[in-house]
Amino acid sequence: MKNKAVVLLSGGMDSTTLLALAQSQNYECYALSFRYGQRHNAELEAASNIAKQASVIRHEIIDLDLSRFGGSALTDDNIDVPSSSSTGIPITYVPARNTIFLSVALGWAEVLNAKDIFIGVTAVDYSGYPDCRPEFIQSFENTANLATKAGIEGDRFKIHTPLIKLSKAEIIQLGVNLGVDYSKTVTCYSADSAGKACGICDACRLRIKGFEEAGIIDNTRYC
Amino acid sequence: MKNKAVVLLSGGMDSTTLLALAQSQNYECYALSFRYGQRHNAELEAASNIAKQASVIRHEIIDLDLSRFGGSALTDDNIDVPSSSSTGIPITYVPARNTIFLSVALGWAEVLNAKDIFIGVTAVDYSGYPDCRPEFIQSFENTANLATKAGIEGDRFKIHTPLIKLSKAEIIQLGVNLGVDYSKTVTCYSADSAGKACGICDACRLRIKGFEEAGIIDNTRYC
Repeated sequence: MKNKAVVLLSGGMDSTTLLALAQSQNYECYALSFRYGQRHNAELEAASNIAKQASVIRHEIIDLDLSRFGGSALTDDNIDVPSSSSTGIPITYVPARNTIFLSVALGWAEVLNAKDIFIGVTAVDYSGYPDCRPEFIQSFENTANLATKAGIEGDRFKIHTPLIKLSKAEIIQLGVNLGVDYSKTVTCYSADSAGKACGICDACRLRIKGFEEAGIIDNTRYC
Repeated sequence: MKNKAVVLLSGGMDSTTLLALAQSQNYECYALSFRYGQRHNAELEAASNIAKQASVIRHEIIDLDLSRFGGSALTDDNIDVPSSSSTGIPITYVPARNTIFLSVALGWAEVLNAKDIFIGVTAVDYSGYPDCRPEFIQSFENTANLATKAGIEGDRFKIHTPLIKLSKAEIIQLGVNLGVDYSKTVTCYSADSAGKACGICDACRLRIKGFEEAGIIDNTRYC
């Protein structure tokens, strides 16, 4: 019997690669996405299409409106998405986002009796986002195993971060080897309703650079 | 200047006492509730009234439908709320609920630049619910300080659990001393739309016993 896994799926490159990787490792995958007030709603359509194409067991999109709190360029209309890099933690950081997403994934995993949760945090991100660092993931895993009936009575939960040490180029190479069609993914922080990318935000620039370094053509549509 | 605090407010006895206590300790309180698919929606109306009466700075009710996952008598219509006590973790346990609630509270606290989060977990609950135990709370606090910009760059977040060692009777005594009007709180897992309590579920029985032990009259309306 296959083990069940909950896979956090944004519809971007990293989580799409993550899903393909989890499936290649023989997990029965339950994909989880969030409508959290992000500007880039095209991501969610991408997530739906990707989940469908990957034939996941179930795909849930959970409504959780973090824009009520504001504080990030991704959820607060009063803060512009920057078009150049900055030092320190980027303004696109969404407060506690990965903690919230992992917590909800944990709740679903416990109900499903799944012990494996996959999240596509990467080295490129964790230079800036605190909740992409290995020490955060390790601490969340400890918390998860104290928080739950399943973590206490049964096997321990494991938070899988197979992309954490990979560069964008390495992720793309991995995905291509796994048969991922990156033209279906949406990366841009400011993608338009048709999913066309701006080509200038942080996320777009990392994507473009990644494909260049991997020597692979990206079929993403830019405005 | 007062310190800001995010206070998790369900509309029940414990969190209402918690809010009064945080205010008595001179915190500027931001109350946070969830519409998470619970059967007992009367709780949320109680929470709104209590937040208003307490003149909190802001009260947010966040929609987060955990009934999509099921797995608890509180959120799954296919599982009955038990009318007698059982051993082990009760079926009214909602998977990862406190982890999820604390994570969202953490996100709001970071945006507000609040370093203090209050949650009304109690000794009576943690005999059954894994996410009411002190070791869980301590672990979540560690995770919170690794997860966030504020936890890394500024003062540490503190998760306050002032009720954790108190019995129901002691909580009631504390609340009465703080001027809490318990007739406004809703405890019952199966309260009707008018907020009337069943008098027989676990939560009702703990409440009734608490008032008896405290020697105080409870004006709650029972069906």
